[in-house]
Amino acid sequence: MKAKAVFHIDWEREETLVMALNNIANLLKAVPAEETSVFLLANGSAVKLFLLKRAFQYASNIQGLSEMGVRFLVCSNSLENFGIAREELVESCEAIPAGVLELIRLQTEGYAYIKP
Amino acid sequence: MKAKAVFHIDWEREETLVMALNNIANLLKAVPAEETSVFLLANGSAVKLFLLKRAFQYASNIQGLSEMGVRFLVCSNSLENFGIAREELVESCEAIPAGVLELIRLQTEGYAYIKP
Amino acid sequence: MKAKAVFHIDWEREETLVMALNNIANLLKAVPAEETSVFLLANGSAVKLFLLKRAFQYASNIQGLSEMGVRFLVCSNSLENFGIAREELVESCEAIPAGVLELIRLQTEGYAYIKP
Repeated sequence: MKAKAVFHIDWEREETLVMALNNIANLLKAVPAEETSVFLLANGSAVKLFLLKRAFQYASNIQGLSEMGVRFLVCSNSLENFGIAREELVESCEAIPAGVLELIRLQTEGYAYIKP
Repeated sequence: MKAKAVFHIDWEREETLVMALNNIANLLKAVPAEETSVFLLANGSAVKLFLLKRAFQYASNIQGLSEMGVRFLVCSNSLENFGIAREELVESCEAIPAGVLELIRLQTEGYAYIKP
Repeated sequence: MKAKAVFHIDWEREETLVMALNNIANLLKAVPAEETSVFLLANGSAVKLFLLKRAFQYASNIQGLSEMGVRFLVCSNSLENFGIAREELVESCEAIPAGVLELIRLQTEGYAYIKP
């Protein structure tokens, strides 16, 4: 059975994103990537952390995890709220309609919820 | 299938309550209210945010969500701890015996857990 | 059916550990200990809170809960990260390989997740 988890961040705190990225990296060290299904979901002001101009310090980190299959979901409600266009974000991000609904959907499908 | 979620707040931080209320409002925009079952559960010092004298800024927000079926649960252990009587809280709140036990019960019944 | 929960702490904040210990104590007041299965899992900088020299204020608390069956898990990745040896921690702690994987495993086995 796959190790399935969704990591949730919602505040604009870099140290929390870094914690989440470290958590995911540790998970992928403990379990082969193909036996995992991992999402990092950002809503609220946390979406700002994925702005290209902000994310340069950890962009390669995000890119590397993305290449291992980790998916980065960003809430469109929150993007709209802060007047941010999808194009302003790092490339690996996927905009989704409602972050909260996705958190519910994933947990209903058996994903563990982890809030760093 | 209904979208079922419990939002958990436990610290006396207004911005976290506002985030939770926004999360719930966004959820109810994405899914018809009758297809959701949503709880906001407060324990710890977060119960103070529901004091009538504190909550005036978001009381109408809480009232509106309550009329759409959202239930606001407040931990009695925590109320007792802070010497707060049920009557001092906004009307929509329901006092429950042990907040933590309710968090477990809801998740066991398939509710997603979301910690803003 | 047992009340099963994992409490997760990941930052070096004493007030959060105290909240978690209070949460667990309240749970064990509401439900007989033999009808519960409770873990507190620490990763990230939260592992430092279990250093013997730091934990003296709540060590008897941890010891008491441990005697009632609560298990205290500490992530070895994080210990290594901060150069902490197992022997420097309070006795009740168990070092586990990857905290995040254990959070997933427990939730997959039906444990509720609670983040104080």
